Amino acid sequence: MEKVNIKRLADELRLAPSTISRALQDSYQISAATKARVRALAEQLHYVPNAHASSLGSRRSHTLAVVIPEVFDSYFAQAISGIEAVAQASGYHVLIYLTHEQLAREQLIFKDFQGGRVDGVLLSVAAETGPHTAHIEALRRHGVPIVFFDRASGEVAAARVITNDEQSAYLATRHLLACQCRHVALLSISRHLTISQQRSRGYQRALQAHGLPAPPAYLVDCAFDDEANGRLIRETLQAHPAIDGLLLTAEKLAVSAYQACQELGRRIPADVKIVGFSNSRSAAFLQPPLTTITQPAFETGRQAAILLCNALKNNHKPALAEQVVLPSVLHIRASTSG
Amino acid sequence: MEKVNIKRLADELRLAPSTISRALQDSYQISAATKARVRALAEQLHYVPNAHASSLGSRRSHTLAVVIPEVFDSYFAQAISGIEAVAQASGYHVLIYLTHEQLAREQLIFKDFQGGRVDGVLLSVAAETGPHTAHIEALRRHGVPIVFFDRASGEVAAARVITNDEQSAYLATRHLLACQCRHVALLSISRHLTISQQRSRGYQRALQAHGLPAPPAYLVDCAFDDEANGRLIRETLQAHPAIDGLLLTAEKLAVSAYQACQELGRRIPADVKIVGFSNSRSAAFLQPPLTTITQPAFETGRQAAILLCNALKNNHKPALAEQVVLPSVLHIRASTSG
Repeated sequence: MEKVNIKRLADELRLAPSTISRALQDSYQISAATKARVRALAEQLHYVPNAHASSLGSRRSHTLAVVIPEVFDSYFAQAISGIEAVAQASGYHVLIYLTHEQLAREQLIFKDFQGGRVDGVLLSVAAETGPHTAHIEALRRHGVPIVFFDRASGEVAAARVITNDEQSAYLATRHLLACQCRHVALLSISRHLTISQQRSRGYQRALQAHGLPAPPAYLVDCAFDDEANGRLIRETLQAHPAIDGLLLTAEKLAVSAYQACQELGRRIPADVKIVGFSNSRSAAFLQPPLTTITQPAFETGRQAAILLCNALKNNHKPALAEQVVLPSVLHIRASTSG
Repeated sequence: MEKVNIKRLADELRLAPSTISRALQDSYQISAATKARVRALAEQLHYVPNAHASSLGSRRSHTLAVVIPEVFDSYFAQAISGIEAVAQASGYHVLIYLTHEQLAREQLIFKDFQGGRVDGVLLSVAAETGPHTAHIEALRRHGVPIVFFDRASGEVAAARVITNDEQSAYLATRHLLACQCRHVALLSISRHLTISQQRSRGYQRALQAHGLPAPPAYLVDCAFDDEANGRLIRETLQAHPAIDGLLLTAEKLAVSAYQACQELGRRIPADVKIVGFSNSRSAAFLQPPLTTITQPAFETGRQAAILLCNALKNNHKPALAEQVVLPSVLHIRASTSG
């Protein structure tokens, strides 16, 4: 099949290639009649503009990047739905990049963005990122707007849409204490994450309010691998048989915790009560149904995308101080009953 | 910050821009000494090639697209892990595109690919696609190799990595019949999908082998919306109280089916036995644990990516007839016991 490019259109219509190009870009320099002729032939021959070439001209890729740590988490799935709802209405493609919680991957992805691949970035930082934010700052200086959602960095002054993590963990811990738990362990996926620090603060505040200590051994730093997490939870429960409550700050920890309890013969909720941060529909159908902190995932994605699209309309400048805090909700189910 | 581009490097080194460009592309026309000088300065000034410009030159984006119907499904999450394992080792970025089961979205994405955004495509077709495959053929004619995984199209002669859907559904149905079910309904997400047709054939073959009919009312075409599916399953169970077995051909249907049974007071497995196609870890911890057909998701993604990378090495020509069939496994749990 002969390639249909600007030159081919120019030859067929006996016009200059620059005229074709301007007509396709709806330039005021070209008459309406010529534009109509060019478009009709482009349509007829199934002409497709070269993405790289047309982006070079307009300096816009009409693409938003969503950079997230992992894809199999219903929180991120719902947040992406919220982002896509806004992006589609605003004429942007959405591309999803996975960091797998690795700083090196996040850095590589951000370096690649400097080449103009995307117009703006919605970022939930990797667990490893912590204070290593030079790649994020570099892209911002490059003029690409960035909006954080859920996992924001405390080091970077960019707009963010987050939830009330400290208060959510406080309420969840207070609920476990009200259910007669006295030895509540906190399972987090990375102490580097601002959300983990906030949740840890809420947990400790609730314990202090009850005059209870939080032994360091009850603060468990989990890995990103499900098997390793199952082992870690099992070892923690074995080493500290007094533990009668678990607060899980990541959705993926729920199945690992249920598995560990099953293997050790600890009954949920009779021996160990569990609250998990989770947006999964299956939480309500686990055996027993899991009490959850449910985050406003769709709305978080939606609002973050709105901030980003506004920044792009406004010459790439997002309102730096912008911070939206959406509340999470505690759903009490059988894993904390009795 | 002053922009670091080819011209800036050329000025600093007093070389022609074309020399800089060739040196960065490791051209044989440039001496090793000059290449070393250019690379040292590029590194020092943090030069980043413009993605669009360098792609124009090399006609390669070093990017693979994964086009899938939805992101929240552990099958696709695991398949993406398999794809990324191969892509990373071969030096490719992976970008994820979601069709949300819509033909129009799939067509838009494929049209965009014609502009050179990606070097190759791994595709699991949308439920709506069915016989409407002109967009896939057009991209193939454009020289972009495509490999199907899981949901292949029967209309397009491209390489594919699939599982034994017909046999899996046959075994699942036979298992339900062995558990004394006599009225087994099949819940699918789209009759247009080849995998749905195969699974339907396996289901019908098992029923015929037992001399049982498959009333059309027992073949339920589900939607993509969880709430609608819950309603549909509830209505089916109410309209046909004899139904004592459900075969769910999509992971997302499991929670909807459990919910419908709970709302109607139908006990699982005493009143209704359930087998679901699912790769979710939570299947084993549902109440009751779900009997599943587990697909080789990671390996499917891995093998599909290998076929695609081989095609790209081989001048973009995939072996058309290539078809890899990986077996799925039946895991029997409490949802079909007793």
